[in-house]
Amino acid sequence: MGELEQRIAFIKAIDALKEVQRKTYLISEKRLENSAEHSWAVATFAMTLVDYAAEGTDVNRVIQMLLIHDIVEVDAGDTLLYDEVHTETKVEREQAAADRLFGLLPEAQANDFRGLWDEFEAEETSEAIFAAGLDRLIPLVHNIHTNGRAWKELGVRHEQVIAKNQKIAKASQELWDYIKPQIDAIFEK
Amino acid sequence: MGELEQRIAFIKAIDALKEVQRKTYLISEKRLENSAEHSWAVATFAMTLVDYAAEGTDVNRVIQMLLIHDIVEVDAGDTLLYDEVHTETKVEREQAAADRLFGLLPEAQANDFRGLWDEFEAEETSEAIFAAGLDRLIPLVHNIHTNGRAWKELGVRHEQVIAKNQKIAKASQELWDYIKPQIDAIFEK
Repeated sequence: MGELEQRIAFIKAIDALKEVQRKTYLISEKRLENSAEHSWAVATFAMTLVDYAAEGTDVNRVIQMLLIHDIVEVDAGDTLLYDEVHTETKVEREQAAADRLFGLLPEAQANDFRGLWDEFEAEETSEAIFAAGLDRLIPLVHNIHTNGRAWKELGVRHEQVIAKNQKIAKASQELWDYIKPQIDAIFEK
Repeated sequence: MGELEQRIAFIKAIDALKEVQRKTYLISEKRLENSAEHSWAVATFAMTLVDYAAEGTDVNRVIQMLLIHDIVEVDAGDTLLYDEVHTETKVEREQAAADRLFGLLPEAQANDFRGLWDEFEAEETSEAIFAAGLDRLIPLVHNIHTNGRAWKELGVRHEQVIAKNQKIAKASQELWDYIKPQIDAIFEK
């Protein structure tokens, strides 16, 4: 297979991300969102919130990271942030998925994409910290808008939401200070 | 409203793009895709096909352009490339949508995003030409994979597909030379 065919095979394989359902409702509440449209939303969120990133953060690297951050779910499925049982096996399942999916690409590009995904997962660079923060923030915006609907349906507790999301402050204290009281207000109703 | 609230209002408003249906089937053929997940796919396609862009093309600008290229459809709906009647009113409807949606953002960012969208629409810079080419190419990949299913259902003819898509050659002759015989093969069956 030529390099162009390999790249087309990759884009076809990741199309299945459009069929991976998340536990977050659309703003309209008409249905749950899928991981492909979430990836679009969070990458666009990064464009929109660039002013809140730490100085020197390369927002284009953040965007590229967010475009591919969930593609391993094509094989591994979406694991809810609050699901402790499945979170245990998540790393293993996602590593195998990354091997297969990035492996569809020509070798140099496979290494580039895998490096970007590994960087996202490690949450160490300012780009990965910002990307991970936005990936946590955007479902909060949806849950707050829908009066905590998904949290209520899933039985997620206030302290779980705070514990799992306070890392947003590492991405931007301003963004965490903005969203934290809104989370509290949902659970105090 | 503060600037952060304006940015959050924007991200909530464009969430409706997840409910705008296109005329392209998923690779799995399970359903038609929507414009939000298409935007994710084509932005990721740009990352994947960066080597086919003209020398000096800023792929990060291409990606940002593709992330927002369809958001006007939130108000204006998706207009099929082969629909001559609705294409006539498309510009007007989309300009009004752009005024409203980008207008939700703080002024400086509204101008930046609008500039990016206007650039995409004008198809003059190498970034816009590449973005527009990929936006045409990706539904071809889906249609060819599904044996022309959407074209057949919509009654789209061979010469229409060629006429509307040959501009892909402006983005990359190599990409057009790759896809053109595959289009021909679908209609020659």
